[in-house]
Amino acid sequence: MKLARRITGLTGGGSDGWDVYYRAKDMLAAGHDITQLTIGEHDIGTDRAILDAMHEATLAGHTGYSMFNGNLNLRERVAARVTARTGLATTPDNVLIVPGGQAGLFAAHHAACDEGDRALFIDPYYATYPGTIRGVGARPVAIPARPDRMFQPDPTDIAAQADGASSLLINSPNNPTGVIYTPDTLKAIAQLCRDHDMWLISDEVYDTLVWEGAHLSPRTLPGMAERTLVIGSLSKSHAMTGSRIGWVIGPPEAIAHMGNLATHTTYGVAGFVQEAACFALDQGAAFEAAIAAPFRRRRDLVLGMIEAQDVVRAIPADGAMFVMLDIRATGLSGEAFADHLLDTHHVAVMPGESFGSAAGGHVRVALTVDDERLARALAHLLDLASDLARDPARSPTD
Amino acid sequence: MKLARRITGLTGGGSDGWDVYYRAKDMLAAGHDITQLTIGEHDIGTDRAILDAMHEATLAGHTGYSMFNGNLNLRERVAARVTARTGLATTPDNVLIVPGGQAGLFAAHHAACDEGDRALFIDPYYATYPGTIRGVGARPVAIPARPDRMFQPDPTDIAAQADGASSLLINSPNNPTGVIYTPDTLKAIAQLCRDHDMWLISDEVYDTLVWEGAHLSPRTLPGMAERTLVIGSLSKSHAMTGSRIGWVIGPPEAIAHMGNLATHTTYGVAGFVQEAACFALDQGAAFEAAIAAPFRRRRDLVLGMIEAQDVVRAIPADGAMFVMLDIRATGLSGEAFADHLLDTHHVAVMPGESFGSAAGGHVRVALTVDDERLARALAHLLDLASDLARDPARSPTD
Repeated sequence: MKLARRITGLTGGGSDGWDVYYRAKDMLAAGHDITQLTIGEHDIGTDRAILDAMHEATLAGHTGYSMFNGNLNLRERVAARVTARTGLATTPDNVLIVPGGQAGLFAAHHAACDEGDRALFIDPYYATYPGTIRGVGARPVAIPARPDRMFQPDPTDIAAQADGASSLLINSPNNPTGVIYTPDTLKAIAQLCRDHDMWLISDEVYDTLVWEGAHLSPRTLPGMAERTLVIGSLSKSHAMTGSRIGWVIGPPEAIAHMGNLATHTTYGVAGFVQEAACFALDQGAAFEAAIAAPFRRRRDLVLGMIEAQDVVRAIPADGAMFVMLDIRATGLSGEAFADHLLDTHHVAVMPGESFGSAAGGHVRVALTVDDERLARALAHLLDLASDLARDPARSPTD
Repeated sequence: MKLARRITGLTGGGSDGWDVYYRAKDMLAAGHDITQLTIGEHDIGTDRAILDAMHEATLAGHTGYSMFNGNLNLRERVAARVTARTGLATTPDNVLIVPGGQAGLFAAHHAACDEGDRALFIDPYYATYPGTIRGVGARPVAIPARPDRMFQPDPTDIAAQADGASSLLINSPNNPTGVIYTPDTLKAIAQLCRDHDMWLISDEVYDTLVWEGAHLSPRTLPGMAERTLVIGSLSKSHAMTGSRIGWVIGPPEAIAHMGNLATHTTYGVAGFVQEAACFALDQGAAFEAAIAAPFRRRRDLVLGMIEAQDVVRAIPADGAMFVMLDIRATGLSGEAFADHLLDTHHVAVMPGESFGSAAGGHVRVALTVDDERLARALAHLLDLASDLARDPARSPTD
């Protein structure tokens, strides 16, 4: 039977650089002791107190249909949080509750883009970005952010693609690079969105994981509240990846239409999960700092080890859960290096090529195992890189 | 800012017949004692044992990312259930887990329809159907099912619209009518799908609520497994409306692409909800019969009261949670009658017009309050209808 072109073409096709990830999973399943530094997920589960609050909510009767756009008590808390963190007055009418950040990305592009519209995004990128754009029938246009600019996008590159584009998707703190966009970068992006009448879709799910500088939400820049859709989530800030709960912040008219869309895509989010989210948000900043602390500590650990050698260079990781390492001195692609590292040392990292073409010759290290294991894995990585850089004959045939 | 036409046009526009529903909610909120016979949701919550199983799953660590297409243990249980209930061998490769039946409807239309495609559905219809079709960029085409045929669709009417259509959406047991499609109706529909190379999207979420005859899943008819996408859910069968858990059954290639779509729309379903679903399915037929029993009992109660008078006629309610009543003898539209009933007796029912144009002059009674209260509300309804039929001067200006 014929399937819609939109769904059969969702992920493009061809090798997508995820072979090493799946190979590592298979090796793990086969009993090998693999150190997984691949996926952006905490090495702890969701806090027991949040789980108990969720259970209490089910027993209190939150097991029926909820408001499709999110229950008012949760929308109020999210609005208050955004107001407090950004300084921009935000009300429940600015908030749509969605089942996780990915659902927010889909809804935001659905609101911004009609069939055939051009939708911009920055390369390197989180794996679902181009498929999300294709999923709403729009055409993904990648804007490279180059390692020689420390992966800050160049406004000139965006401007060259902006005419007639419906939206621009950015992500700061950034996955996969760990980079935080500078105020200058964000101001230039905002100017481009205003000049070209583009929606800015700002994925800010790592906004509590900031080690250097500060997170600036571009929705707060002049004239941007009316054209920015911010994606937020409790996945990374509260270690609630599996609960599938997040939000979109935007102008009330767009949010109302997206609430209408939610009625037709998911019929709302489980009420007991929304109650758990309220409880989680009520735990305050100390709780969030405790979730963030291991990633900051491990990032310092990795950067310290990188400083002590001169083959592998690190992109300054200012936030998120990752360090992006430049391994070009080895002469290998990110993919070949990651393959080799998995085979020789049973350490799995993500090739930069998994996130587009701009991060070729890099590997992304997720800071998602305990410090000791991370240090051991990184030592293996640096040893391998050093051997390869000294003696290219050792490198595998690619 | 300009929003996409697809999202601003999602719900059509104009009065949608839901005024009485919102007015009843407002009156309830204002402290009036309203009997709500509007929404298809149990008057019980989710069973405590299921909620405890969900809590245990969270404590056992099911709080991280799940498989995007559904965890294997749940897909195995759903496949076994479908095999047992329909006799058609079904494997986990035929099963996609989604966050509720509505998400399944969206995914199925996304798989079947490209932008601008014609997608057929039967009127009267569940409220989200045309918006779901518009949400994937397709054009909804309503096929009337008429009261004089007891709301069984006429294959001739479908055939007249089938040329070039990508899909046909049906729902049996039917919301809003309570009708179960006969084997002859379903065989004729299957023949049309084969002849016109259409996908059949079969919404079977009420398949455990059957009072007369038997539920026949059209996926089991010759040549239909390869072109049918069945929507299932635990909402109605297990009183789990708020948990947002359901599935799509279809051919493996379509299911694989829809799993890919799920990665981009929702990133999977909460693992602890999937574990709760496994537990719920393991409770077996007696559990499901206990959930269904009150609706059968109340349906008998309503039909008994209808038989004892001759103004209001009932469509034979063979399944689901509703009885559709023909109130045309009152001279009023369903909407005017429902308005009048709410004002005079504080009983809220849904006008047939809320579900399209084919059910004008009818009201839908949801069997979702306790028997005594239901009997009292229905007595009021019948009294009002009798008064109006005898003395049309009493009717409100419409």
